[in-house]
Amino acid sequence: MREQDALRIVVIGADAAGMSAANHALRVAKSAGRAVDILALERTEHTSYSACGIPYWIAGDVAEGEDLVARTPEAHRAAGIDLRTGATATSIDADVREVHWSDAHGDHVAPYDELVLATGAEPIVPDWARTSDGDLISGVAPVKDLNDGSAWLDLMQLRPSGRMVVAGGGYIGIEMAEAGLRRGYAVTLLTRSRVMSSLDPELSERVAAGLRAAGVEVHEGVTVDGLEVDQDHNLRAACVGDARHECDLLVVALGVRPRTELADAAGLTLGKDGGLLPDPEGRVAPQIWSAGDCCEVVQRLTGERSFLPLGTHANKAGRAVGANLIVPGSLRFDGALGTAITRFTFGEVDLEISRTGLSTAECEEAGIPVESLVTDGTTASGYMPEAAPLAVQVLAQPGTRRLLGVQIVGGTRAGKRIDAASAALWGQMTVDDLAWMDLSYAPPFATAWEVLQVAARRLAERLS
Amino acid sequence: MREQDALRIVVIGADAAGMSAANHALRVAKSAGRAVDILALERTEHTSYSACGIPYWIAGDVAEGEDLVARTPEAHRAAGIDLRTGATATSIDADVREVHWSDAHGDHVAPYDELVLATGAEPIVPDWARTSDGDLISGVAPVKDLNDGSAWLDLMQLRPSGRMVVAGGGYIGIEMAEAGLRRGYAVTLLTRSRVMSSLDPELSERVAAGLRAAGVEVHEGVTVDGLEVDQDHNLRAACVGDARHECDLLVVALGVRPRTELADAAGLTLGKDGGLLPDPEGRVAPQIWSAGDCCEVVQRLTGERSFLPLGTHANKAGRAVGANLIVPGSLRFDGALGTAITRFTFGEVDLEISRTGLSTAECEEAGIPVESLVTDGTTASGYMPEAAPLAVQVLAQPGTRRLLGVQIVGGTRAGKRIDAASAALWGQMTVDDLAWMDLSYAPPFATAWEVLQVAARRLAERLS
Repeated sequence: MREQDALRIVVIGADAAGMSAANHALRVAKSAGRAVDILALERTEHTSYSACGIPYWIAGDVAEGEDLVARTPEAHRAAGIDLRTGATATSIDADVREVHWSDAHGDHVAPYDELVLATGAEPIVPDWARTSDGDLISGVAPVKDLNDGSAWLDLMQLRPSGRMVVAGGGYIGIEMAEAGLRRGYAVTLLTRSRVMSSLDPELSERVAAGLRAAGVEVHEGVTVDGLEVDQDHNLRAACVGDARHECDLLVVALGVRPRTELADAAGLTLGKDGGLLPDPEGRVAPQIWSAGDCCEVVQRLTGERSFLPLGTHANKAGRAVGANLIVPGSLRFDGALGTAITRFTFGEVDLEISRTGLSTAECEEAGIPVESLVTDGTTASGYMPEAAPLAVQVLAQPGTRRLLGVQIVGGTRAGKRIDAASAALWGQMTVDDLAWMDLSYAPPFATAWEVLQVAARRLAERLS
Repeated sequence: MREQDALRIVVIGADAAGMSAANHALRVAKSAGRAVDILALERTEHTSYSACGIPYWIAGDVAEGEDLVARTPEAHRAAGIDLRTGATATSIDADVREVHWSDAHGDHVAPYDELVLATGAEPIVPDWARTSDGDLISGVAPVKDLNDGSAWLDLMQLRPSGRMVVAGGGYIGIEMAEAGLRRGYAVTLLTRSRVMSSLDPELSERVAAGLRAAGVEVHEGVTVDGLEVDQDHNLRAACVGDARHECDLLVVALGVRPRTELADAAGLTLGKDGGLLPDPEGRVAPQIWSAGDCCEVVQRLTGERSFLPLGTHANKAGRAVGANLIVPGSLRFDGALGTAITRFTFGEVDLEISRTGLSTAECEEAGIPVESLVTDGTTASGYMPEAAPLAVQVLAQPGTRRLLGVQIVGGTRAGKRIDAASAALWGQMTVDDLAWMDLSYAPPFATAWEVLQVAARRLAERLS
C-alpha cells in the first residue's frame, strides 16, 4: 500500500507529543504534496489522553476514563496513521535506521527515514511500594496513566472508606488529597520538603494552611521509608522512621522521570535530569527527533535545561517536530517559563494556585540575584460578594529590574492571573512594566489597582 | 498652621485621580523631607469612590453606597489634606496662580504653586431626558456618581416593578440591564449601534444573544429621540422615531465626556474628544497638571490620544502626577491599551466580556492593516464540569505580525484571560509570541492548548 517514495516516519509513544508530531506532519505533508508513511508504536492501549485529568476522574468529576481521551487509536488510524497499541519498542539501530519492536504477534523491525521519540515520563515508585515480586502492594498506586486511574477506581470500590495517605506534596499530591476528601476518605499528606515546594515558603505555607483547614493532616519534611502490611497483605500504615501513619490507601505522588532507557541504550545524549535534549526544532540526532515528557526543556529565564513535564510543552514541541519533519526549520519550540496552575477545593476551602518563572530557590541555584515580596489583596473589589483573598509573590532582579517570577494563591479567578505575568516574562519585561501595564478592571474581577500590579509596584519601589 | 515654605498644591476633584495625586504627593514629600500644603476642592460630598461599582449597588450586590467609598473625606483630612466638599472651582487664573472657588460659606481664592485638575467626566444626558426646567424627568437617571446610585434606589422603591428601558449598549448599559433583571424588571435595551460596540461584530453578537437569552429585549441601531410622559409626569415610553418602547424607568447609559469647561475657560488645550492632554508626567501647562477622566490617554498601539475613562488609568496617572509634583520626572504614565472587562450574568446566562488593544474598526480608523479570526473553545478541559464556552477574536497586522488586539466572550474565568493579551500588547509582541508563550494549564482552568493560543496560532498560520 505504501507509496515507494513516501517519507517513512516512526513515532515511539502515541500520547500528546508523539501524536501532535504525527498529526501535524500529516497535515504539513498534505499541504506540501509530500507522501508520508507514519508508523506509531504505543506500549499501552491508550493514545492522546489527558494525564492531568486523572485526579479529577478519580475524584468523580469525570464519568469515564474514555472522557479523558482526546483521540482514540481508531481516530488516529482513520486519520492515516499506522498506529499499533501494545507495541513496545525494544531497540533503535540508528546506523541502519531501524526500530526493533514487539507486540502480541511477535518481534518486528521497522525501518525509518525519520524517528520521533515521544516516550514520555514514568512515575517514581520507590521499592517500598512493591512486593518482593515487584508488584505494587495492594492499596498502593501512582497516578500517571489511564491504567492507574482504573486501578484507583477499583481500589476505592474495594476500600470505600478509611484513611488515604498521599506521599508527595506537589501538584498530583494536592489534587489527590482533594480527590480523597471528596471521596470521603480521611487524608494524610506526607511530603519530603514543603507542600507545593515549587512556590516560595510563604505561599507554600498558605497552601498547607488551606489543606489543613479542609481537614488534611499535613506533615512536611518527612519521607516515607516503608509500609506496614498485615498478614493478609492489607496495607496498614506508611512508615516515616519510627512514626507510622495508618492508611488503607496510599497515593504515590513523588514525581516522574523521563522514560529514556531506549534512547540511552541507543547512545543518545541525556541531560542532568535524564531527559533528551532536543534543539528548538526538536532534533536530538541525525534523523532522530524528540518531544514531550522524555525531554528536558529550555527554561527561558536561565537558558538552562530543566525537566518540566507538562502537556502544554508536549503539544507545542510535538507540533514543531511535526512541521520540521516535513519542512526542516519551519517551526521552533523556544522553551518554557515553568508556568503551572492547579487548585485545591474542598468545603469552605477554595484555592487556586499558580506560578511562573523562577522561585527564589531557583534563582539562587542559577546565581541570579533576586528580591521579592508578598502582597495580599482580593480577587474582586472588596465590596463585591465574589471578592476572595489573593496573595501574590513577585520576584525581580535588582539592577536590571527584570521580572523573574510570580506566584499566586487565592480564590476563584485568582489562578489564571498568572498568565499576565507569564506573558511579561516571555517578553523579558521589568517589574515596572508589570506594575504599569494596562490590565483589566471591573468590580467583579479585580480591585482598581490589580493585586498583581500592586505587588509589582511595591517591589519596583523597593528596588529604586 | 501652614509652614511658610511649604509647596502649595491645589487639587480640583477629589476622586481617583485627584486623591491618588494628593496622597502620593504627601507620601513622596514626606520621604523627601519636603513640606507640602494640599487643598482639595470637591464639588460633591463624596471622595474616592468606585463609580464602576454603582451598577452592582443598584443590583443589590452592595448594601450601602458607603461601601463603594475607598476613602472618606474624613480619612483624607486625617491624612493631612485640607479637603473641602461642596466646593466648586469657578475659575483658574494661571497668570497669578490662583483658583477661585465657592462653597456654602461664600467665594474664596486659593493661591497655588502647583495645580492639579482632576475634574473627571460627566454623563451625556440628552435634552429629552430633562423637563423644560432642566431637571431629569421622573423615572430617568444616568449611572455616574453616588447621587445617581441613591436616585436609582429611590426610583426602584417608588416603581418596584414594570419595565426598564436602558438607553445605551456599552459597559454601563449591559451592567444596568443585569441590575434591572435582578431587581425584577422587564428590560429593553436600545442602542445606537451594536451591543458592546467596542467589540468586533461577531463577538458583539454573542453578547447580544446572551442578553436576549436572559430575557432582555434588544434593539440595535436605534436612537432614543424622545420620551412619552403622561399628565401626571409619569414616564410612559421611550420613543424611537414612530416606535415607542413602554417603560417605567429609563437608564441613560450613553457614555460620558470629559468635564473640562473650567480648563477650557482657562485657555488650556483640549483634544478631539474634549479632554486635557497631559504629557507622560501629567503636565498640561506650567504648574498645571491633570489626570483621570478629564484627560485623553495615549493609546500605545496608535500613539494617538483616546478618551478611555477608567479608574485604572486615573489611579496610575494620578500617582504619577503625585510623584512628579514633588520630584519632577520621577514617574511616568505611559499610556493605555484600551483594556476593559465586564460581565453579564443572569439565570442560565453567564458571560464574561473583555477586550484589549484595537478593534477592527479602530485599526481601520488608524490606517493599520489588520487580519483577525474568531476561535471557539472552552474555559476548562471539555471533560470538566466547569468547562464553559469561550470565544476569542485575535487581531494582528499582516507583515509585521504584531498583535493588535484580543476580544473575549465566555463563561466564568474567561474574562481575565485578556490580561495575558494585554501584557503581550504592552511588550509589542507578535501573534506568534501569543501562540507559543508558556501560559498556564490544568483541567479546571484551560484546555491543553489554551484557546487564546489556539486562536493566535490559527491567525499566525493564516498570516504565513
